[in-house]
Amino acid sequence: MASLLLSRRDLDFLLYEWLDVESLTARPRFADHSRETFDAALDLSETIATRHFAPHNKKNDAEEPRFDGTRVHIIPEVREALRVFADAGLIGGAMDAEVGGMQLPGVVADACFAWFQAANVGTAAYPFLTVGNANLLLAHGSAPQVDTYVRPMVEGRFTGTMCLSEPQAGSSLADVRTRAEPAADGSYRLFGNKMWISGGDHELTENIVHLVLARIPGGPPGVKGLSLFIVPKYLVEPDGTLGERNDVVLAGLNHKMGYRGTTNTLLNFGEGAFRPGGAPGAVGHLVGEPHRGLSYMFHMMNEARIGVGLGATALGYTGYLHALDYARSRPQGRPLTGKDAAAPQVPIIEHADVRRMLLAQKSYVEGALALILYCGRLLDEQRTAASAEERDRARTLLDVLTPIAKSWPSQWCLEANSLAIQVHGGYGYTREYDVEQFYRDNRLNPIHEGTHGIHGLDLLGRKVVADGGAGLGLLARTVSATTARAAATQGELAAFGAQLDAAMAQVIAVTGRLWADGDPQTALANASVYLEAVGHTVLAWIWLEQLLAADGHDGDFHEGKRQAGRYFFRYELPRTGPQFALLESLDRTTLDMNPDHF
Amino acid sequence: MASLLLSRRDLDFLLYEWLDVESLTARPRFADHSRETFDAALDLSETIATRHFAPHNKKNDAEEPRFDGTRVHIIPEVREALRVFADAGLIGGAMDAEVGGMQLPGVVADACFAWFQAANVGTAAYPFLTVGNANLLLAHGSAPQVDTYVRPMVEGRFTGTMCLSEPQAGSSLADVRTRAEPAADGSYRLFGNKMWISGGDHELTENIVHLVLARIPGGPPGVKGLSLFIVPKYLVEPDGTLGERNDVVLAGLNHKMGYRGTTNTLLNFGEGAFRPGGAPGAVGHLVGEPHRGLSYMFHMMNEARIGVGLGATALGYTGYLHALDYARSRPQGRPLTGKDAAAPQVPIIEHADVRRMLLAQKSYVEGALALILYCGRLLDEQRTAASAEERDRARTLLDVLTPIAKSWPSQWCLEANSLAIQVHGGYGYTREYDVEQFYRDNRLNPIHEGTHGIHGLDLLGRKVVADGGAGLGLLARTVSATTARAAATQGELAAFGAQLDAAMAQVIAVTGRLWADGDPQTALANASVYLEAVGHTVLAWIWLEQLLAADGHDGDFHEGKRQAGRYFFRYELPRTGPQFALLESLDRTTLDMNPDHF
Repeated sequence: MASLLLSRRDLDFLLYEWLDVESLTARPRFADHSRETFDAALDLSETIATRHFAPHNKKNDAEEPRFDGTRVHIIPEVREALRVFADAGLIGGAMDAEVGGMQLPGVVADACFAWFQAANVGTAAYPFLTVGNANLLLAHGSAPQVDTYVRPMVEGRFTGTMCLSEPQAGSSLADVRTRAEPAADGSYRLFGNKMWISGGDHELTENIVHLVLARIPGGPPGVKGLSLFIVPKYLVEPDGTLGERNDVVLAGLNHKMGYRGTTNTLLNFGEGAFRPGGAPGAVGHLVGEPHRGLSYMFHMMNEARIGVGLGATALGYTGYLHALDYARSRPQGRPLTGKDAAAPQVPIIEHADVRRMLLAQKSYVEGALALILYCGRLLDEQRTAASAEERDRARTLLDVLTPIAKSWPSQWCLEANSLAIQVHGGYGYTREYDVEQFYRDNRLNPIHEGTHGIHGLDLLGRKVVADGGAGLGLLARTVSATTARAAATQGELAAFGAQLDAAMAQVIAVTGRLWADGDPQTALANASVYLEAVGHTVLAWIWLEQLLAADGHDGDFHEGKRQAGRYFFRYELPRTGPQFALLESLDRTTLDMNPDHF
Repeated sequence: MASLLLSRRDLDFLLYEWLDVESLTARPRFADHSRETFDAALDLSETIATRHFAPHNKKNDAEEPRFDGTRVHIIPEVREALRVFADAGLIGGAMDAEVGGMQLPGVVADACFAWFQAANVGTAAYPFLTVGNANLLLAHGSAPQVDTYVRPMVEGRFTGTMCLSEPQAGSSLADVRTRAEPAADGSYRLFGNKMWISGGDHELTENIVHLVLARIPGGPPGVKGLSLFIVPKYLVEPDGTLGERNDVVLAGLNHKMGYRGTTNTLLNFGEGAFRPGGAPGAVGHLVGEPHRGLSYMFHMMNEARIGVGLGATALGYTGYLHALDYARSRPQGRPLTGKDAAAPQVPIIEHADVRRMLLAQKSYVEGALALILYCGRLLDEQRTAASAEERDRARTLLDVLTPIAKSWPSQWCLEANSLAIQVHGGYGYTREYDVEQFYRDNRLNPIHEGTHGIHGLDLLGRKVVADGGAGLGLLARTVSATTARAAATQGELAAFGAQLDAAMAQVIAVTGRLWADGDPQTALANASVYLEAVGHTVLAWIWLEQLLAADGHDGDFHEGKRQAGRYFFRYELPRTGPQFALLESLDRTTLDMNPDHF
């Protein structure tokens, strides 16, 4: 039976027929790799995800982590799954061989990880956060910090978290209050509360490495005064053994609508429950320079944002495959023409409206997966670039695509999950089936790692204006190169290309118009609409790229790609029309709304 | 503190400033009523909903009904709430005084009931189903049936259900298999299984009156062979006392994503657990004529559909008010201009993007409430019409509006609930806050009482073509009358009217185009898109009606109406543009998709 997690056929198409990931093996970093090693990693991931992650996905939801005031109880299957994952070397999938990693291209590691997010996003969150944490330390930590904290994370003995938010500081990191007092030994003592910390407490591993944003007294106010600290749950002795319990204490678990398998915590730092070394405060170790914490954290956040997009995609994808499977097996109703009550019922996939819901899902989830893997490919290019030019090009394009890679799947793969429920009818609304959980799990994604609104501001207020609009210009040229290839085909792809060119021209036009007005408030009041319009335009480009890769190939799979692409150009891209018109009008409806008038 | 359930100010505007509900008191049926009696019913509803329904809404969700194999356990607050509701006379709110009702206009009874759906949709479902059941029997039952079953329902001693679906027959009622064998005493004996029966078992009341669709052997196949039966849980003796247990047995509860407070059941009829009168089968009493069951059921279903729209609206409305309350009280971030980290944070309602999300919610929930109350007003006109002409006009317009009144709130007030979560950020995703439950509860509404797809087929395949297009023609003339009044204002309302006229012209044009093609498959493949496009057009008309009613009035409330109306015309109605273009193109993308290509 075909997997209901992801489509390996689609992954192969995206990685090998479209993104030519094999060509990466020509780069020194990936010289030991080949299509065979990539395939082996994908096979391994599918197998472990299927055998060790998927089976406890519903149980993880129904029996969510519980805090008894002393410790957190988590179903035992989670610990076992994480052990198998780590033993297979998957935590270090994309990391350097030197620290125990497999040194796979990031794009392949992303494809591998998607299997786990599709199988059990709650359990997969622990390695997800650990990998992000480790990558940050590999980039900005000292060599001893890498030895002390990263190696055990790669081995699966420690997990990692990122501690940014506080109860009064969510989207507004300028308001972080946790303070870090310098201690005599060069370490720091932290005091404060951190909110929404995923994986913030558990006994799944020997230790937890918290990366914490805090203020060193005397630093500048706002985000420019934030420094980054390693704060382990248990102190680590120079020989690597675990020492005293640090003063990081679980104040409580947040109980969520979905994503229940992941503990989400309120943590108190330095409240006095423990006194490591006999002194008050949680022991922390500065990462890099003081006051540069947010820029280091962005290193992790940018990857995490694409990872959130990947998780949203994986949930949408598995929901789509579940809906497809149901639509093929559930008999209900008869063809519109020739309704003979004595004839047997037909599978609901025979109804055009069910195929509409499946095509919509297919266009969202396959489009989103393609976009995310494209971003992964860009990251690989950036990291292994042969020239500064190549590196800058990849980074510039990735910068402008990141808010879309995070937000678009979070919005549209959630919509896919809603459609998956709808295909199931009443059954889909029950907890006996799987799709309602995907929908609840996926609803987190437009919120964490920057809300939809924050990414709109990031795209319109920062990314498209940075370096004199270099990112947007590069995106436009990249899209043009695709449409030029489409034009050469002379068929329907040429027509789709022309439709895309028109949309991209509108993106350029409204961007100029919004900023030409000279009133940033008016421009940014429309940032969310802008994000959605640019998102759909980018996805149309990604679809055209896939259609070009499929061009000339016959068979069910490629025909399916073509029809999903047609669906996107006919049903989806046109949604941008009214959005561009609204942006063009410099609309002030929301800005002018007096709060007293609600 | 203002209620977080509904806005009484808005209800007063809709009922008195717009729909002129007071004028109904000139009709003989409502002659004993006045604005005072209407207000008293609304006050009473708000009070009971606030004191007896809202407080256990979360508990009803967290401690859902549980079946121990013998009986169903429901938290005691539900029984108490239903007792207070019935004692206040609210079950018979719109029913004849003769059967113990208040004989209120339906539009006022709807407004009253919305308080309960907003407060606790799970508990409110029991009287909702009971009222629908009782109304059907009042219309089609015999006098003894009314005495035996309806009166105890009005008194709150019995509740009612509607039993249509079976495991193999959801949307396809032609496939109902439950059979009803005639018995010697004129009653019937039923055998079969019914699925998705809300309120199908509990011990909240003395008895449960099931209305069951079943086949009398020898009848025609398909929906034309369905008859309707009263099947009480306990037989009722001629003197009204309860007799033997009937053979209706709970096979299990469905466990749902939301709406958890309402038991949803699989019921077995005549499986032999009980033998009333010593013979096998569940005792049933035929309602009306044999084989006319579905047409009687449609009487109930049309009301139930508008009631589902009302429930979706109420959930959207309370979510909006919760989001508004949060946005006014949660400090986070600073104005875009002049970001001084030392300045205090501002309430998030100061951010334009938050106001965008609030305006969207306001435009959805106030628009939906206005549409539903308009439909309630039409039902009152139909039932108390002074002439056949007036009656036919009201019925014709109501027929065409019903699929929209059911589907539009189910789609857009669910979207409002999603935005309410988004306004709350991470807090909204937790079960400590209320909005995530509203979102889960509301997700049922696009599924039950006919899925979105079914209502698309109903609108495009049945309602707009019935009687040579009489319904659509009447809708167009009704909209024109509104835009003519708007044109006379010469201001922005005239411009909105012109925009609406253009959209309505598109509705007419695409309807003709879809059917002119002569291929019903192509037409109906686009039925869901058609439903959405017509829905947004109808809502634009409802908003223009509200704007005209608000015209010339100052103050916060009326200014708010104006801005929400502007939002609808600027952000929402334009969404129909690409939908009309797609319909105009007679798109076959979904129809042509080969199921093997997915």
